[in-house]
Amino acid sequence: MILELQPGTDELAFIRRLERMGLHAVRQGERRLSIVRGIDKSVKPDLFIELPEVAAVLPLKEKFKLVSKAAQEKTIFEIKGKTIGGSELFVIGGPCSIESKEQMELCAQIAYENGAQSLRGGAFKPRTSPYEFQGLGEEGLKILHDAGSRYNLVTISEVMDSPQIELVANYVDILQIGARNMHNFSLLKELGRVKNPILLKRGFAATYQDLLLAAEYILSAGNPHVILCERGIRTFETHTRNTLDLNAVPALQELTHLPIFVDPSHGTGHRSMVLPMARAAVAAGAHGITVEMHPDPDNAFTDSAQTIGVEAFSKMMKEIKFIHHFLQENCYAQT
Amino acid sequence: MILELQPGTDELAFIRRLERMGLHAVRQGERRLSIVRGIDKSVKPDLFIELPEVAAVLPLKEKFKLVSKAAQEKTIFEIKGKTIGGSELFVIGGPCSIESKEQMELCAQIAYENGAQSLRGGAFKPRTSPYEFQGLGEEGLKILHDAGSRYNLVTISEVMDSPQIELVANYVDILQIGARNMHNFSLLKELGRVKNPILLKRGFAATYQDLLLAAEYILSAGNPHVILCERGIRTFETHTRNTLDLNAVPALQELTHLPIFVDPSHGTGHRSMVLPMARAAVAAGAHGITVEMHPDPDNAFTDSAQTIGVEAFSKMMKEIKFIHHFLQENCYAQT
Amino acid sequence: MILELQPGTDELAFIRRLERMGLHAVRQGERRLSIVRGIDKSVKPDLFIELPEVAAVLPLKEKFKLVSKAAQEKTIFEIKGKTIGGSELFVIGGPCSIESKEQMELCAQIAYENGAQSLRGGAFKPRTSPYEFQGLGEEGLKILHDAGSRYNLVTISEVMDSPQIELVANYVDILQIGARNMHNFSLLKELGRVKNPILLKRGFAATYQDLLLAAEYILSAGNPHVILCERGIRTFETHTRNTLDLNAVPALQELTHLPIFVDPSHGTGHRSMVLPMARAAVAAGAHGITVEMHPDPDNAFTDSAQTIGVEAFSKMMKEIKFIHHFLQENCYAQT
Amino acid sequence: MILELQPGTDELAFIRRLERMGLHAVRQGERRLSIVRGIDKSVKPDLFIELPEVAAVLPLKEKFKLVSKAAQEKTIFEIKGKTIGGSELFVIGGPCSIESKEQMELCAQIAYENGAQSLRGGAFKPRTSPYEFQGLGEEGLKILHDAGSRYNLVTISEVMDSPQIELVANYVDILQIGARNMHNFSLLKELGRVKNPILLKRGFAATYQDLLLAAEYILSAGNPHVILCERGIRTFETHTRNTLDLNAVPALQELTHLPIFVDPSHGTGHRSMVLPMARAAVAAGAHGITVEMHPDPDNAFTDSAQTIGVEAFSKMMKEIKFIHHFLQENCYAQT
Repeated sequence: MILELQPGTDELAFIRRLERMGLHAVRQGERRLSIVRGIDKSVKPDLFIELPEVAAVLPLKEKFKLVSKAAQEKTIFEIKGKTIGGSELFVIGGPCSIESKEQMELCAQIAYENGAQSLRGGAFKPRTSPYEFQGLGEEGLKILHDAGSRYNLVTISEVMDSPQIELVANYVDILQIGARNMHNFSLLKELGRVKNPILLKRGFAATYQDLLLAAEYILSAGNPHVILCERGIRTFETHTRNTLDLNAVPALQELTHLPIFVDPSHGTGHRSMVLPMARAAVAAGAHGITVEMHPDPDNAFTDSAQTIGVEAFSKMMKEIKFIHHFLQENCYAQT
Repeated sequence: MILELQPGTDELAFIRRLERMGLHAVRQGERRLSIVRGIDKSVKPDLFIELPEVAAVLPLKEKFKLVSKAAQEKTIFEIKGKTIGGSELFVIGGPCSIESKEQMELCAQIAYENGAQSLRGGAFKPRTSPYEFQGLGEEGLKILHDAGSRYNLVTISEVMDSPQIELVANYVDILQIGARNMHNFSLLKELGRVKNPILLKRGFAATYQDLLLAAEYILSAGNPHVILCERGIRTFETHTRNTLDLNAVPALQELTHLPIFVDPSHGTGHRSMVLPMARAAVAAGAHGITVEMHPDPDNAFTDSAQTIGVEAFSKMMKEIKFIHHFLQENCYAQT
Repeated sequence: MILELQPGTDELAFIRRLERMGLHAVRQGERRLSIVRGIDKSVKPDLFIELPEVAAVLPLKEKFKLVSKAAQEKTIFEIKGKTIGGSELFVIGGPCSIESKEQMELCAQIAYENGAQSLRGGAFKPRTSPYEFQGLGEEGLKILHDAGSRYNLVTISEVMDSPQIELVANYVDILQIGARNMHNFSLLKELGRVKNPILLKRGFAATYQDLLLAAEYILSAGNPHVILCERGIRTFETHTRNTLDLNAVPALQELTHLPIFVDPSHGTGHRSMVLPMARAAVAAGAHGITVEMHPDPDNAFTDSAQTIGVEAFSKMMKEIKFIHHFLQENCYAQT
Repeated sequence: MILELQPGTDELAFIRRLERMGLHAVRQGERRLSIVRGIDKSVKPDLFIELPEVAAVLPLKEKFKLVSKAAQEKTIFEIKGKTIGGSELFVIGGPCSIESKEQMELCAQIAYENGAQSLRGGAFKPRTSPYEFQGLGEEGLKILHDAGSRYNLVTISEVMDSPQIELVANYVDILQIGARNMHNFSLLKELGRVKNPILLKRGFAATYQDLLLAAEYILSAGNPHVILCERGIRTFETHTRNTLDLNAVPALQELTHLPIFVDPSHGTGHRSMVLPMARAAVAAGAHGITVEMHPDPDNAFTDSAQTIGVEAFSKMMKEIKFIHHFLQENCYAQT
């Protein structure tokens, strides 16, 4: 349980007063105390709401204070003239790893010509093995920045830990947090202090609640522009790299006002499954899609098996735009 | 490893011959032996293919002999003038449990008027608890049969064990095998002997391979008309009743020629999620959809929380028919 | 919700009376009605307990009426002079498949000489693929029976569906229900009518509650002698065949009075892991262990990779008897 | 694939040479190149081993170069006169959160008097919600250090991100990496540079291979003293907080020389299950145990439900020491 205190309250005196009531409280940010003893049990909010020092009591069930649908109907924001979270579809395309200037310029051109809004590419690669390709680093970020600028595409790249934030934020528009970092609370708090929107990928064993609480960390630290991204979870099924959980799209839309994206590349692990699952994601109501695309997918440094080429990307764009347009015209108005 | 023998082979003599080679074989249906000793290890097919008695060797990797895409491009069949597995969408609607004559006639009318092909309803309910409603039995089957006949709808109902097969097959067109029975190999073998098509639901912890092998049991016993149905798997996520795995649709379509249906009702457990997930299923390429629908969903005996009403069913039909039509016209031809 | 009626109640009249109260009830066995409308919602037991026809109301939370720890402290029973569920450890050993008379007599001798209580062997094999070895059938059961009798060992073998029950029960002492049949409610009900104890294996995606409800099916149909058996669940981990969930042992012991066994062979899938996990199971408090043992494990027809040989079986018996003895002397008295 | 180069090789010239062979290589640490194009496919090690610049080729299957059992039989090290990874059991006890000086001194005394080797306590708490108690920080570390010193107990506390490493390493002996950070590769690399041993907890959806690769990150960066810790994984079972996977103990012992610990507190989430699962962990062969213990568990700030008190801790120590002693005397010699 969290107590929000009235401005001007003497916090130490109030903590001592709580202690005399048999309770233990700890400072939790400005004008905010966390009651830590008995927090999961029988202490009732009514106990506190009467105290003159207390402005508000946040019981445990209001875990999702800021991300909740109750707080706000929708989060819609604009970046480089493109809208996220509204009635427009937002498509991110690009390779898993930034490999070279030529590769990224080609990717940018393909994305632009097919009507995508954003260009992705990894400069720091989180690899399960320490011996695999770890990315081009800052040089890669520059390449991404330049390729994106030429076509006015929103750029996005992954940040792997707190010390990298400033560097990546200098070059790209949206900071991506990978599935493996969704539970990295120190990093999440730091992301609350930047101006860039955050694409937060669902951890591969994270519940919807875990994902929302991770977003709450960012919002509560000051950054309201968080995009949630379903990218597949781990299950007993091994045919696919992950099990893309499209239930997440309608389920999260009932719980939060934040935009929901889907990544059918990591969600399936198979190039041939990217198109049907991209269509399904949009049909389920996703606000956006992020896919791995490469001018020469067979020779991509990383994630080749799940990366689509130019022709498939072009076909995908036509299909998902059609489905999205139909839904905008026919479904959402009536829902 | 399976050996298919030449016609006229003296099987016992051949088994003894194998034994002298240090191998143990067991009869496995007509003119077919299973090498059981060392089957998972180093015995090579070449050993056998030279023997004059052997017509063919089926190594372990040909586990899916009959259901495999290699065997056949597509399974398409017709029932009551409606096609399954081809270019038409097939929609099954109806309540979880058959409750009364009035309820089923209303359901049949709703299904018919909105362009659905089939009417479902449970007469024998597999309930996790022995104290829950177990269904109306044969009386329910009659009600289903009559309601379906009036509107020329294909009827479908679940069979729970072998002794029930004949009874259910007398009244309904398609026999449904529930997720809990997908691994019931005795039942699967019996289903190979009936003429009715089988809707085989994926077990909630069954891999794609398990599902295909279950279908192989039915096909290998003589019944080629099996529809596979994704209905959600068990994962760590508890917000939804199950995690609907739409990856199954494109994944299975690459592996098998059998039609793939999706059940967004059990796959989500939430009425509000049925429409988006039905759309997603069709967008992913499903040949059909089965949904729980009831004229008065709040008062359905069973599965009320995931059962949609008339208005939602009508809206769903419009949406999925549109998406299906678009895909037929624009996507599949080019794939 | 279930209503138990007073003897002599006119059931049809009472159902009509309930209908006038706006409720729908269905007969559920003798003198027992299930209220099916609104069962999951706001109907309160108090409504019914006042009615003169009603002897008892079983609300939903009493799902585990008969298996619950509240019903009884412990289930202890004897078979061939050996006790199950009490302070003695009960060990079942034997091959996955019954292969021959010689093999089973050797197994019986090994089991007996090392102090095991019971001999297992499969006569009907539930194989995921229809082309794998399906077992010796009745001939196998005779072999098992004879080998067990010679050493006064309790015999156990799997029943795969209802029509097999009588046959298997004629030859063996304990009927085993495999993980794939744990949800086969028709079969469970039939097992309530036999006199043999039942070893009920946990389905590989069954929760503790599912397992207890499956046992409740058997008990509520009249057979009180059910042994629960943990044998591993399906998770994302693929190194092991299953993930043996030993948490099940203390968790189930808090919920039910039924004996809990553990199967470290299927639970791991690796011969080298059977001993440590058998020790762990006994240390966690299991009442018994079932392991796959074969005089020549490398040449076992089925499950060779997880089957241990004579030496390992002998070593395992010494280790688990020691740990069990220590726990009996030192831990349980004080708990 | 990784190439280790001969000392003195001109790396850039060699990279260009590889490019003329149609391959793309990237520097990967000192004298080490990663072949990134075609790495997952048909490039054979033989191609490279002939080149004069190449000292060694590490194919993909040697993912676990340093942690592998092939590299070394056992990792045994000493700290404050206590051995980890050898024939002695190592027990860590203490509260989830450091709350006060009095609490920690009492914990240290209880640990010491019952024969435990180590004292744990969290100073920075990774909480799923940003509004829950986040720990006492540096003040907590001092308290832990002082309480441990008084009884010569090895101290251990969690590090949440790279900037914290130095601070925590100043006060405590072993640095703990929580399950949520097991995939935080930036942090893992930094841990390779410290002198303190690392207790690396398995991520709750991490396979054994993921856990070993995470350890490989630390070893390959220079720190050989890594302890692996099983603490439960996420499955469909919700009765327990996690599913403690004791299969991990024998499975990992076959794959790696690193010590394996088990955490039955997080692995179960229930106080009443800690003792049986601690016994099971030791019986399965764990080198150590870490448990949450508190002088007044009902009033622990965090994790109260899974924290045991003095009496239970004392009973647990007796039981696990007995089982461990028996195994040392009777089992391992013969294995």
